[in-house]
Amino acid sequence: MRRETTRQTGRVDLVVTGGTVLTMDPEETVVENGAVAIRDGAIVAVGARRAVESGFQARRTIDASGRLVLPGFVNGHTHAPMTLLRGVKDDVDLMTWLTNYMFPIEKRFVSREFVRWGALLACWEMIASGTTTFADGYFHEEEVARAADESGLRALPGQGIFDVPTPDSQTSAEGLARAEKLLSDWSGHPRITPSLCPHACYTVEPDTFVRTMRLAERYDAPVQTHLAESPAEIALVGERYATTPVRHLANLGVLNERLVAAHCVCVDDEEIAKLGSSGTGVVHCPESNMKLASGVAPVPRMLAEEVRLGLGTDGAASNNDLDMIGEMGSAARLHKVATLDPTAAPAHAVLRMATLGGARALHMEDRIGSLEPGKRADLMVLDLSGPGALPLYDAASHVVYSARADAVETVIVEGRVLMDRRRLKTLDTDEIRVRVGRFGRKIRAALPE
Amino acid sequence: MRRETTRQTGRVDLVVTGGTVLTMDPEETVVENGAVAIRDGAIVAVGARRAVESGFQARRTIDASGRLVLPGFVNGHTHAPMTLLRGVKDDVDLMTWLTNYMFPIEKRFVSREFVRWGALLACWEMIASGTTTFADGYFHEEEVARAADESGLRALPGQGIFDVPTPDSQTSAEGLARAEKLLSDWSGHPRITPSLCPHACYTVEPDTFVRTMRLAERYDAPVQTHLAESPAEIALVGERYATTPVRHLANLGVLNERLVAAHCVCVDDEEIAKLGSSGTGVVHCPESNMKLASGVAPVPRMLAEEVRLGLGTDGAASNNDLDMIGEMGSAARLHKVATLDPTAAPAHAVLRMATLGGARALHMEDRIGSLEPGKRADLMVLDLSGPGALPLYDAASHVVYSARADAVETVIVEGRVLMDRRRLKTLDTDEIRVRVGRFGRKIRAALPE
Repeated sequence: MRRETTRQTGRVDLVVTGGTVLTMDPEETVVENGAVAIRDGAIVAVGARRAVESGFQARRTIDASGRLVLPGFVNGHTHAPMTLLRGVKDDVDLMTWLTNYMFPIEKRFVSREFVRWGALLACWEMIASGTTTFADGYFHEEEVARAADESGLRALPGQGIFDVPTPDSQTSAEGLARAEKLLSDWSGHPRITPSLCPHACYTVEPDTFVRTMRLAERYDAPVQTHLAESPAEIALVGERYATTPVRHLANLGVLNERLVAAHCVCVDDEEIAKLGSSGTGVVHCPESNMKLASGVAPVPRMLAEEVRLGLGTDGAASNNDLDMIGEMGSAARLHKVATLDPTAAPAHAVLRMATLGGARALHMEDRIGSLEPGKRADLMVLDLSGPGALPLYDAASHVVYSARADAVETVIVEGRVLMDRRRLKTLDTDEIRVRVGRFGRKIRAALPE
Repeated sequence: MRRETTRQTGRVDLVVTGGTVLTMDPEETVVENGAVAIRDGAIVAVGARRAVESGFQARRTIDASGRLVLPGFVNGHTHAPMTLLRGVKDDVDLMTWLTNYMFPIEKRFVSREFVRWGALLACWEMIASGTTTFADGYFHEEEVARAADESGLRALPGQGIFDVPTPDSQTSAEGLARAEKLLSDWSGHPRITPSLCPHACYTVEPDTFVRTMRLAERYDAPVQTHLAESPAEIALVGERYATTPVRHLANLGVLNERLVAAHCVCVDDEEIAKLGSSGTGVVHCPESNMKLASGVAPVPRMLAEEVRLGLGTDGAASNNDLDMIGEMGSAARLHKVATLDPTAAPAHAVLRMATLGGARALHMEDRIGSLEPGKRADLMVLDLSGPGALPLYDAASHVVYSARADAVETVIVEGRVLMDRRRLKTLDTDEIRVRVGRFGRKIRAALPE
């Protein structure tokens, strides 16, 4: 940690006090009976309860006694509006799923309204499970930006860009124009970082990828993509470009510190080194990779190469939830059985992937991902007093292997309390429930069979 | 289902009404706006709400409108008292874990009192996550029987039998004597089925296995064991008996309808056929197999062979929870990625494993595992109105992929309500918390480092 307590004193907006603070700073400092002081949306002190409480007068105090205090989770890859398609069809092969379900349903139903209510449902679900930042890619992303803003979450909405017609654009030029509007409308927002989401190497032409990166550079915006997700993608890209997806992007000059690449399942050692040395962010999505039978990303090797490695849920249509605690458990278990090594992907490393690692993957580690003075105040209070988490020996291990999302008690983003002892403060959940139910009934009625 | 509604009428103790009833009967009948009538601990009718409500006068009615009603989960393999060792040491290799942690801690701390409070904590956790039956193996199992009885759960406590000294027996003869006392003390109990648990082929001598089976036959009791769990076991058994674990037990004549074999990770096609044709129950424990890096059990092939296949959490020291909903999600995802087939282990099959499959694995399918007239009334009400389960397209898919254990609202065993809208009715959870905390502090203080 930069400094265990600061010498600053004075008035602050909020002190979260009395809990075991897992700072997730680079030294993974843990402060028993600690406190976090927050002013103007930023962390001004982290340290022993006594020191923080005597140094600062707080307008509000949250008692976290007997609880854990940790950075909010960074969901590095999702498609928030797809909550409306959660479980619409599972356990079929990928082509049936896409051709008979996802594509026709999206074509028929995806509108600004669909995106709005799907994104609001996603924000509700993410706040209630401890996520404080999410990176998103879909259509009509201005509605994701608006929903995230209303919810109080930190987000990177990414306008989807394809060289095939989509629910919001007939061409990639149209997609890029929508993207530019998103960038220009939301640039400078304290929590919403507009971004671009060229879908993948097999749906986006090389010059579109390059134009997307140029646009991103002009606005200093991040670029998200799906990369090396499955053997099918490897085959497609191999046929078309006689190379692999990672090498293809490297050849285009777009493998860089602005890029956030989801999945990276099918990557060899040389590609892992390239991802690491180029500063590309990588987001591991174990539950989606498992459920869609894409394969197992070489996470232990990426950890060893110090790739900027985060964790993501992917969309709810392929997971089927946005629960980062469940995702951590799946990551920690999957890599052990995949390598037959019970020391692979240890709990501490996986918890880092979900916090500071995710911040690094999104190139935001100077602002979020750990509890350190100077960073934005994105954090949660976790109550591990339920029967499934007793007794407590190792906090990080419990968060990864034993906790469930309902242990998330209080969630704070940019110093603002979004959930207070399980009560949502920013969203009208009754209205979301009604609107989502309506979409669900309409979509259900339109399903084949 | 045997019959969708019965013609019986009259007074009943309880009607659970208004929910979507997933009967999990062999036809997987689903009754929308259905009801279940319960008398003297048994199900007397399952059918449409109107028919059941007009046919029966209930002393008590539970409104399950907008909710799912399904059979309680059958946790086919656990070590309940090991909740006290939950997360005591994770992410180390198996020999370090056993030699430096599990064995010395168990030697020093496992007593009747340890078993009692660990088992009560486990019962609390299992009730709160929808388990209604559990099969257990450990030491001082009379205390597991007592705890399960007090909690109201259905259980198969299994006295551990080893040919090495254990916390409750110096020899296997002593273990068998303890087992016989357990069988004789608890035989005939409506919910507690005492059983025997010879640990594994590499810790139990051949003649001990045979003597255990003889004793079980005399009391008509089930026998639980660990079988073909890991490559290390295959190597040990190969060295000692020049065969595989499954063939070794077949040679001993103990592979039969009384046996419940946990794990079966390392089994070939011939062994799967043997397990199927012998009527052996098999309990798949995916999270334990993943976390301990044991390997991936060939579940799709076992399903195709119609092996009596259930699902279990294993003990909390190697999982680290007793949550069958999480276990179902892990099972459904693991077999897809392990086979690279997204249709493997579909949600419906996995939900069956956790209910009727588990009942078949424990040889109790005539009494539990589905909601059918004549079976014991072991069921739960599941509330899927949380944000992570909206909207609803396919109930079974949601239970497996989207639900979390906190959606379990009401749990009924043998017609008795053990949890009523998340309030535990049978256990003093404050006292359990205090006792468990004391054990945790003592064990923590004794850990190496």
